[in-house]
Amino acid sequence: MSSLRISGRRMLQDLAELATFGGREDGGVDRVAGSAADLASRKWLANQITAAGLYAWTDHIGNVFGRQVRSRGPWLLTGSHTDTVPAGGRLDGAYGAIAALEVLRTLHEADHPAAAAIETVAFWDEEGTLPVSNGGLVGSTALCVGEHIRDIRAFVELHIEQGPRMAEAGLELAAVDGIVGVDRYLLVVRGEANHAGTTPMRARADAGRAAAKIAAYLWETADEVDESMVVNVGAMEFHPGVANVVPGEARFTVEFRAQSEFSLLRAIDRTEALVRRIGREQGCTVEVSRLSHKPVVRFDESYVDRVEETCIRQGVPAGRLVSYAGHDASVLSTKTPTAMIFVPSVGGISHSPAEHTPDEQLILGAQVLLEMLVQLDRAMPKSATLTRSQR
Amino acid sequence: MSSLRISGRRMLQDLAELATFGGREDGGVDRVAGSAADLASRKWLANQITAAGLYAWTDHIGNVFGRQVRSRGPWLLTGSHTDTVPAGGRLDGAYGAIAALEVLRTLHEADHPAAAAIETVAFWDEEGTLPVSNGGLVGSTALCVGEHIRDIRAFVELHIEQGPRMAEAGLELAAVDGIVGVDRYLLVVRGEANHAGTTPMRARADAGRAAAKIAAYLWETADEVDESMVVNVGAMEFHPGVANVVPGEARFTVEFRAQSEFSLLRAIDRTEALVRRIGREQGCTVEVSRLSHKPVVRFDESYVDRVEETCIRQGVPAGRLVSYAGHDASVLSTKTPTAMIFVPSVGGISHSPAEHTPDEQLILGAQVLLEMLVQLDRAMPKSATLTRSQR
Repeated sequence: MSSLRISGRRMLQDLAELATFGGREDGGVDRVAGSAADLASRKWLANQITAAGLYAWTDHIGNVFGRQVRSRGPWLLTGSHTDTVPAGGRLDGAYGAIAALEVLRTLHEADHPAAAAIETVAFWDEEGTLPVSNGGLVGSTALCVGEHIRDIRAFVELHIEQGPRMAEAGLELAAVDGIVGVDRYLLVVRGEANHAGTTPMRARADAGRAAAKIAAYLWETADEVDESMVVNVGAMEFHPGVANVVPGEARFTVEFRAQSEFSLLRAIDRTEALVRRIGREQGCTVEVSRLSHKPVVRFDESYVDRVEETCIRQGVPAGRLVSYAGHDASVLSTKTPTAMIFVPSVGGISHSPAEHTPDEQLILGAQVLLEMLVQLDRAMPKSATLTRSQR
Repeated sequence: MSSLRISGRRMLQDLAELATFGGREDGGVDRVAGSAADLASRKWLANQITAAGLYAWTDHIGNVFGRQVRSRGPWLLTGSHTDTVPAGGRLDGAYGAIAALEVLRTLHEADHPAAAAIETVAFWDEEGTLPVSNGGLVGSTALCVGEHIRDIRAFVELHIEQGPRMAEAGLELAAVDGIVGVDRYLLVVRGEANHAGTTPMRARADAGRAAAKIAAYLWETADEVDESMVVNVGAMEFHPGVANVVPGEARFTVEFRAQSEFSLLRAIDRTEALVRRIGREQGCTVEVSRLSHKPVVRFDESYVDRVEETCIRQGVPAGRLVSYAGHDASVLSTKTPTAMIFVPSVGGISHSPAEHTPDEQLILGAQVLLEMLVQLDRAMPKSATLTRSQR
């Protein structure tokens, strides 16, 4: 355990200042990627990095990096994103990005040798709110297909949990085992639009009725496949969508998240059987198309163990957890050893102005991040490899 | 049975000509009330009335009337509407309005005494497509709250069935017993919008799930109440309506149509119990508000009998039927004895370019209308009451 402590006060002050960019009266934040607030906050962050005596740079997509001026890499990358959903909270992403700065600043001020090995990042557009964002994770994806990723030795992301699982398990810190896989589908049910009075019930091919029945059974179906998986029907629409016409078409989305690819496959398998049965029963056809697939992520076991041990050493209840939300870490994990640290979200609330984590826990999490990075730096072979720094 | 026959050829020619106003390439008609096509068709109809040597007049709302020049009333009113739904058919409404003209024209040419007792009408905006139309039946409602209704002795409407019930019962002509009552409700389910990954299934207050389950059970509920009633969930929407957010709100419409007010009451009663049960089970609240109520209509028994007898005398299978669609006749029936005659719709299709009835059946229906009006005129006391004609 390092004797070096981060400055909780300074980190919380930075977090509060970042929250003024796109800040809302209700305490929430509107800082969608590319908005004026987002762009201004990135300039502010680069200034904070520079003000700490560090070197700030921004890549072509908008990711903001920080490191020691004479640092030559390869680097241990740490950080998160600084964009938010509309009416989001002040911690989702922002916490990990600001904690990264605080960790590097602390090491730099103490002239700690690990400081030279660390680079901080504030990713561009993790949330993917805009249609052009194609589901988000834009900045981390751009990093992973670019040149700079070759100079990254590992990635550690500190984040709020965004769910209630830690509180339920009584954890104040958690090492993240991995991230669930996410399959998203569009179901289009086609029947026959008809007069809602004159068409007898038995003569209807009611696309709305078929859609409602499929959705009603879908939750049980997913539960049967894997109790740990989650399913969501987030959007549903009937067409033509008027009170006195039997719906000729119904469209709805189905999203499955599971800890194993096998569960994702079984879930859609069962769904397709359900769809065939209800489609036949209601005289409708159902078209199932997969909109996107995000594979299950398992972080490097040795990294997860290391994070867990570091958490436990803080003297608070700590353990391991699978993340049900996507993170930049899932993209980075395809290119470099990756780890994540979670602090709890009060009430499990996120993507909301009510998003909150007590200060002590935010400080604890940042301290774990510092110790994890110091340890990783010690464990890494000091290669003299000439790196391809972008400076 | 009158020896006087309507001219089928002339009526079909008029119907074909009317269908050119707003005519579509697919054989359908776009003649929404107030559209250029609707206004032009009303001028054309008034010209046809005048060309037949009759007197045409239009009231303040746009209903087009026709009668003999020296006719003094009170009148036996007959007709239907000439507006259509968007992409509607060439018979819904138009048939009854054109048949009315053909009947009066036939009687007028034959110098038949009943001609003086008849007025024809082409109602304005029965369909109620536009938001300003407030559910339709605009022209007939305006007539019923105005002065001219006092000069109407009875109303007879000839219409296509718009459903498959006549074909199923093997009927070629039908006397309409009455019109179902229609109750329309809006259900708003409120839960809690939440992250679709991090929120465990048991911690969700999923408004979409509650709405789908309510809708899925609703059809059975209605069937249990009254097998002859129909129910439709025509519109359904989830909010915020994105794949990765648990719906915080769901809105859907429920429309019940039944032959008795008691069934309508029991249906909403059962629905409210269902809504309470599923709302509780899913942790959601459900607000049920009635958007509109159209009472059950029972036409005068002696008129229905008379129509049925006239139908049977045509020598084709004929019987009685309840209408599951609303008609101007339901409004008129609140003010004056009213009867309706139905001819079948092939395949039960209506409100569609594919709407069709064989020519022979259209001609049969118009002949029944003529005989019914001649009979009614004979049965009416020849009062010398000074009427308040609008001439």
